[in-house]
Amino acid sequence: MDALDAAIKKCGADAFVLYASSDDADMRYLTRVIMHDPFVFFKRTKQPGTIITSQMEAERASRESPAAVITRTQAGLPDIMKKVKNPWKATAQMIAGQTGEKILVSPTFPAALVRALEERATVIVDDGTVEQMRAIKTKEEIRLIKNVQKKTECAMELGIFLIRNARVKKGLLYRDGKPLTSISVRTAMQTQLMDAGCRAAETIVSCGLDTALPHAIGTGHLLEGEPIVIDIFPKDEETGYFADMTRTVSKGEPDQRIVEMYNAVKDAQALAMSRIRAGVPGSEVHQSVVDLFKERGYESNTTGFVHNLGHGVGLQVHELPTLGPAGRPLKAGHVITIEPGLYYTGIGGVRLEDLGAVTTRGFSNFTSFPEELIV
Amino acid sequence: MDALDAAIKKCGADAFVLYASSDDADMRYLTRVIMHDPFVFFKRTKQPGTIITSQMEAERASRESPAAVITRTQAGLPDIMKKVKNPWKATAQMIAGQTGEKILVSPTFPAALVRALEERATVIVDDGTVEQMRAIKTKEEIRLIKNVQKKTECAMELGIFLIRNARVKKGLLYRDGKPLTSISVRTAMQTQLMDAGCRAAETIVSCGLDTALPHAIGTGHLLEGEPIVIDIFPKDEETGYFADMTRTVSKGEPDQRIVEMYNAVKDAQALAMSRIRAGVPGSEVHQSVVDLFKERGYESNTTGFVHNLGHGVGLQVHELPTLGPAGRPLKAGHVITIEPGLYYTGIGGVRLEDLGAVTTRGFSNFTSFPEELIV
Repeated sequence: MDALDAAIKKCGADAFVLYASSDDADMRYLTRVIMHDPFVFFKRTKQPGTIITSQMEAERASRESPAAVITRTQAGLPDIMKKVKNPWKATAQMIAGQTGEKILVSPTFPAALVRALEERATVIVDDGTVEQMRAIKTKEEIRLIKNVQKKTECAMELGIFLIRNARVKKGLLYRDGKPLTSISVRTAMQTQLMDAGCRAAETIVSCGLDTALPHAIGTGHLLEGEPIVIDIFPKDEETGYFADMTRTVSKGEPDQRIVEMYNAVKDAQALAMSRIRAGVPGSEVHQSVVDLFKERGYESNTTGFVHNLGHGVGLQVHELPTLGPAGRPLKAGHVITIEPGLYYTGIGGVRLEDLGAVTTRGFSNFTSFPEELIV
Repeated sequence: MDALDAAIKKCGADAFVLYASSDDADMRYLTRVIMHDPFVFFKRTKQPGTIITSQMEAERASRESPAAVITRTQAGLPDIMKKVKNPWKATAQMIAGQTGEKILVSPTFPAALVRALEERATVIVDDGTVEQMRAIKTKEEIRLIKNVQKKTECAMELGIFLIRNARVKKGLLYRDGKPLTSISVRTAMQTQLMDAGCRAAETIVSCGLDTALPHAIGTGHLLEGEPIVIDIFPKDEETGYFADMTRTVSKGEPDQRIVEMYNAVKDAQALAMSRIRAGVPGSEVHQSVVDLFKERGYESNTTGFVHNLGHGVGLQVHELPTLGPAGRPLKAGHVITIEPGLYYTGIGGVRLEDLGAVTTRGFSNFTSFPEELIV
């Protein structure tokens, strides 16, 4: 019995119900189907569950999913809608007709559907069972994540190639006589990823003072002797799994303060990796990096190291576990980023991010890409 | 006073609250910010509202949004989390501290946060006020949608150019000696859209018998004398608005049944457009197409015309209003697709889709792209 069946049994529910599109990671995880409009999935214990979808999507869903598929018409929705005009109430009546009087729903289940179901059934909100299941990856999931990580490294290779081979005129980078910009490097990398079946949006290629904002995606002409942060987190469209990696480079020698920050971040990453293994709390690994930065004179507050050390990656780019102050013990099979960074307004930012799996013995790094500041 | 203020006032709530990432259309609509992790937005009447986000995102949010921005730290979350370990409960306590004892939440508000808030406040679930506000577009929104529609037509132009100029050998299409496939046409169109700042995933380029499945995205070698359905629905990354259009073409003469289906679909589209104006129910326009198809001998059931005639387009690719059996009266400012289609297993499918606005006088078509079957 898996954890979801245990959760259903524990609260005595007739079924567990989801209502979402497959953009919802729990939905994609349990159904393995790609459908962009919200649909219903329900399961009882000891069965893969049932999808309720439109006539038009039913054939595709049957082909893609291990779940059973019935149409909304088969579930009685057209008849219900003759009397019930509110779509949430009609959907609730359809769900209750399939499931029973006690229903366990996911934490992100829509509030309107909770209220409508409460008129017909007892609704219990689950405490993230599927999210916790998703955090522990199977061998097959790790294979899929390694696969998208490889494609991500190829894109990083291209991005850094363009910077390394740029011509410099008056401190600005050029390629084939045209300005080399955040946007041109981003587009080149994203196009290559798209050709490889991945969707990468908002890829960060920030330069100079912009790098002090960890999430600024970057615009404008790339500069010589300034940090360039490249952070790529594509989703493999076919499988739904993400990868995530970051490198910081500089075309030519940057300010000495950037060099020192880079060395501290690199050491912090190595330290964190050496601390990781199943059983160690994510908070402890995060704190070890905070301590190392403190020794080197960097704070971890509203400036300096301003974010968590890492996060889980899977069907979401940010998922459990957390490597931050609230981090709980890591488990074997967690796939996580290790991404220390330092950010100072008026100077710039540095971040290095690798992706890998927690094992009983340590950290199995999926990333095999060099870390060199000056290119 | 706008409709949301009216809804807050009507139920006597202290504030309206959202919890979502900006992938949620209501969140993007009210905040105009792009943040991929969920965050809190709340508003009282007569104010643009307040975003609660991480330290790291706060600067960006302040720059992009008309809303006020406070950090989670300013809202007291770190102190709350010292005592409250469950993240939903901690977030609920933070929200209640900012808003008051009576809270109106969006229909898609997460169930777990409803339950946690209910321990501290009265939670009323709104009935889709923001979704209904989003359905009526301002002039500025129409400008943004026309803009992405133009980019979409350029991509369609490219896709059809590749098919028109393909070489045919033994019934298969080639370009520069290489097979012209669903994937190569899709990639060419999507790359062009990406260069134009748009994200297009799952663009449909289906051919032959696959076209009988309206949502099959298509794979494999394109064929001579067979219907090719191209359906493009990109999102402009910068503005968040979608466009949507479909054409069906054939390289060379297709089966006579496809030609007849094409003519019926084209006539149905013209009829529907002539019927549209503010006040006319979407159901009535849909039914007029069902009737026309019936006269021509085509059913509207599990085969034939199997989907709705159209849907709203905006910050979501599918939003209100509905042009289908449940369609209510159209309003001026609705931006909708008109997309009749016919689908027969063993024969194939035809769909034509234009995008435009409902006006008090009729339909203002944003699409100025020819409809020609044989290319």
